Amino acid sequence: MQRQQSWRQFWKSVHALLACSLLFPTAGWGFDYFQALPDRAPFPIDTPPTAEKIALGRKLFFDPALLGPGSRLSCNHCHNLAEGGDDNRALSLGQKGKRSRRSAPSLWNIGFQTVLYWDGRASSLEAQTLDHLRDPLIAKARNVGEVVQYLANSAEYRRLFAAAFPGGSAVSGDAAVSGEHLAKAMASFERSLLAPDSPFDRFMRGDAHALSESAKRGMQAFNDVGCLACHFGTNFAGPAPGPALGLGDGFYELFPNHLGTRYETRYRLADDLGRFEYTGDPGEKYMWRVPPLRNIALTAPYFHNGRVNNLPEAVRVMAKTQLQKELSEETVRDIVAFLSSLTGGI
Amino acid sequence: MQRQQSWRQFWKSVHALLACSLLFPTAGWGFDYFQALPDRAPFPIDTPPTAEKIALGRKLFFDPALLGPGSRLSCNHCHNLAEGGDDNRALSLGQKGKRSRRSAPSLWNIGFQTVLYWDGRASSLEAQTLDHLRDPLIAKARNVGEVVQYLANSAEYRRLFAAAFPGGSAVSGDAAVSGEHLAKAMASFERSLLAPDSPFDRFMRGDAHALSESAKRGMQAFNDVGCLACHFGTNFAGPAPGPALGLGDGFYELFPNHLGTRYETRYRLADDLGRFEYTGDPGEKYMWRVPPLRNIALTAPYFHNGRVNNLPEAVRVMAKTQLQKELSEETVRDIVAFLSSLTGGI
Repeated sequence: MQRQQSWRQFWKSVHALLACSLLFPTAGWGFDYFQALPDRAPFPIDTPPTAEKIALGRKLFFDPALLGPGSRLSCNHCHNLAEGGDDNRALSLGQKGKRSRRSAPSLWNIGFQTVLYWDGRASSLEAQTLDHLRDPLIAKARNVGEVVQYLANSAEYRRLFAAAFPGGSAVSGDAAVSGEHLAKAMASFERSLLAPDSPFDRFMRGDAHALSESAKRGMQAFNDVGCLACHFGTNFAGPAPGPALGLGDGFYELFPNHLGTRYETRYRLADDLGRFEYTGDPGEKYMWRVPPLRNIALTAPYFHNGRVNNLPEAVRVMAKTQLQKELSEETVRDIVAFLSSLTGGI
Repeated sequence: MQRQQSWRQFWKSVHALLACSLLFPTAGWGFDYFQALPDRAPFPIDTPPTAEKIALGRKLFFDPALLGPGSRLSCNHCHNLAEGGDDNRALSLGQKGKRSRRSAPSLWNIGFQTVLYWDGRASSLEAQTLDHLRDPLIAKARNVGEVVQYLANSAEYRRLFAAAFPGGSAVSGDAAVSGEHLAKAMASFERSLLAPDSPFDRFMRGDAHALSESAKRGMQAFNDVGCLACHFGTNFAGPAPGPALGLGDGFYELFPNHLGTRYETRYRLADDLGRFEYTGDPGEKYMWRVPPLRNIALTAPYFHNGRVNNLPEAVRVMAKTQLQKELSEETVRDIVAFLSSLTGGI
C-alpha cells in the first residue's frame, strides 16, 4: 500500500529538477540540500541570547529543583549533554520511574528545529519548556508557579534572573523571576547547544579530505536512494521556515510510508499513530516531524519508539518503509559512514 | 494589605464617571453595565452554529465514549444540564474517583465567556474541548486520536459528522470525523446553552414588576457596594472583547484583593495562587478570571475551591475580601435576591 501527501510530491519535483546537478559542494545547488552548521541558531527577536540568559538556563538545566520539590532528576537526566544529548534509552525513565511513550531526542543543535516533540506540538523551545514543567512524567512540581515560587526564594536565582533580565517583566514590573523568563533562559541555553565542525561540516567548507571514501559514497547514496528528499537542510530535518510560524507548522512526513513491511511488524512501527494522536485529524495518521540526523551515531536506539538498536538497521528500515528499497550491505555501510560524519564536537 | 492592578483602576475610573447616572434601565448608560441576555452567543466566523453541529455536539456531550474506552462519565457528569449546569460539588469527581483541584463551572451561558478555566488558560470552547480530552482526570482516552478513531468506527457518528461538516476537513480532504470537527461541534452545542428570560432579563426589557422590591434594592446595592465594578456585562463577568483575542486575554482580578481577612483563613481562599500557577508570573499571583454570575443561585457551593456553601455567605466574603466592607444582613439579603433574579429558564 502506498500513501502520498503533497509535501513529498513537491520536494520530489524539486529534487528531480536538481538531479542533473553534481552532488558535491562546488556544484552550486540552487537549494541548499546539504548545509554546514551555521555559527549560531536563530532566536526570537525579543530574546537575544546573552551570556547571562545562557548561564541561567544552564544552571536551571542541571538543577533538579527545576522539576519540583524532591525531584532527583534534572533535564540532563533524559538529555545527557555529556553524551549524545539524549539518554540512549528506547524510552526515558521519568519521575517515579514512569516510562515515557516516545524516545527522548538529542538537544544538540536543537535550536534549528522549528517545531518540537515527535508530533510537533510545541512551536518554540520556550513553549516546550513550560509544557515539560506541566507534565507529571517529567516534573514533580504541580505547576509553573510552584517552580517560580521556589526559585524566587533563592537569593542566587534572584540574582541570576535579575542579571539575565535587567528590564524586569512586561507583565509584572520588576519581578525578574517569572515563568516567562525561566522559559526564555532555558531556550537561550538550548540554542547555545551547538555541535559544530563535524567531518561533514569541514567537508562542506572545502576540506575534501574530511570525509572517508566510504562516507563520500554514502553521501551520494543518501541522495540517490532518496533519503535527501526529506532529510535536507541544516539539521537534515527539512525546511526550517523560521520563528514566524504558528503552532505546529513544520515539516511532517508519513512513517511508515509503505505499510505492511517485515520491519513494521518486527519493530511495531505502526502502533503509534503519530501526529493524529495529538490533532485527531485522520489526514495526520502516521505523520511525524522529520527528525534531525546530526549526531545520529551517538543517539541509539532509534525511531519514536526506540525499538531499532543500531544505525545500519535503522538505515535498512528507512529504505524499506519509506522508499520500498532493499539496500546492498555495502550501501548501508556507506550511508552509515556518511551519517557518522555528522557527529560534531560537543 | 491592599493590592492594586491596572484593569481595576481603569474600570473604577469608568465607573466613577458613570456614578451620577441613574441606575435603572431607562437611564441610558453610556456603557452597558447591566445587560439582558442576547438571543445568541457570539461564534467564530468559520463555525456558524448549524442545527447539525449542535445535534452532534449534544450527542457527544452525553456520550461517555467521548471520554475514552470504558469511561462511565460523560461531560454531563460534572456539567449537569438538568440542574445548574455544574455538579453542585465543591470539587468534581473525575475518572477513577480522582478529585479535581478547582470547582466545575456551569455551562449555561458559557458562550459569552472569552476565556475559559478559572485561570483563563483556554481561549475558546474549541481549545478547551481538546484540552479536556487530554486531561487524565477527565478523559480515559490517551489522546484525541484515540477518541476520533473510536467515533470513526461508528456508522452513526460518521453520518452525524458528515451532516455537520459537509465540506469535509481542510487538512484531510473528505474525512469528516476529526479532532477539529469534534471540537467545533462541542463548542457549537455549548454556545447553544442559553438560559434566557430570567426575572432580571425581563426587568431589563421593561417589565418593572419582574423584580421584587428586595431584588431592586439589591441591584442598587450591587452597584453601590462596588460589585458592579468587576461583575458587569452580559454574563456579569466583565468585558467580553470577542473572539479575536489571543490565548489568555481576558478580564482578570485579584482574589482575595485584601489579604488577611477572617474569611481567608476560614475558607482557605489564599491557598491557590490562581493564574500564577499557570503562567508563573509573580504579577499574576491570586489573579482569577472574573466568574460569571448568571444562575449563581443554582451552583452552590462557591468560589474556585468550593468551600463556601451558600450565597449569603459568598456575598459577605466578596464584600470583605474584595472591598473591605461589612454588609448589613438586610443588604446581604437584598443582593442575594438580586442574584437570584439572574436565574434563567433552562
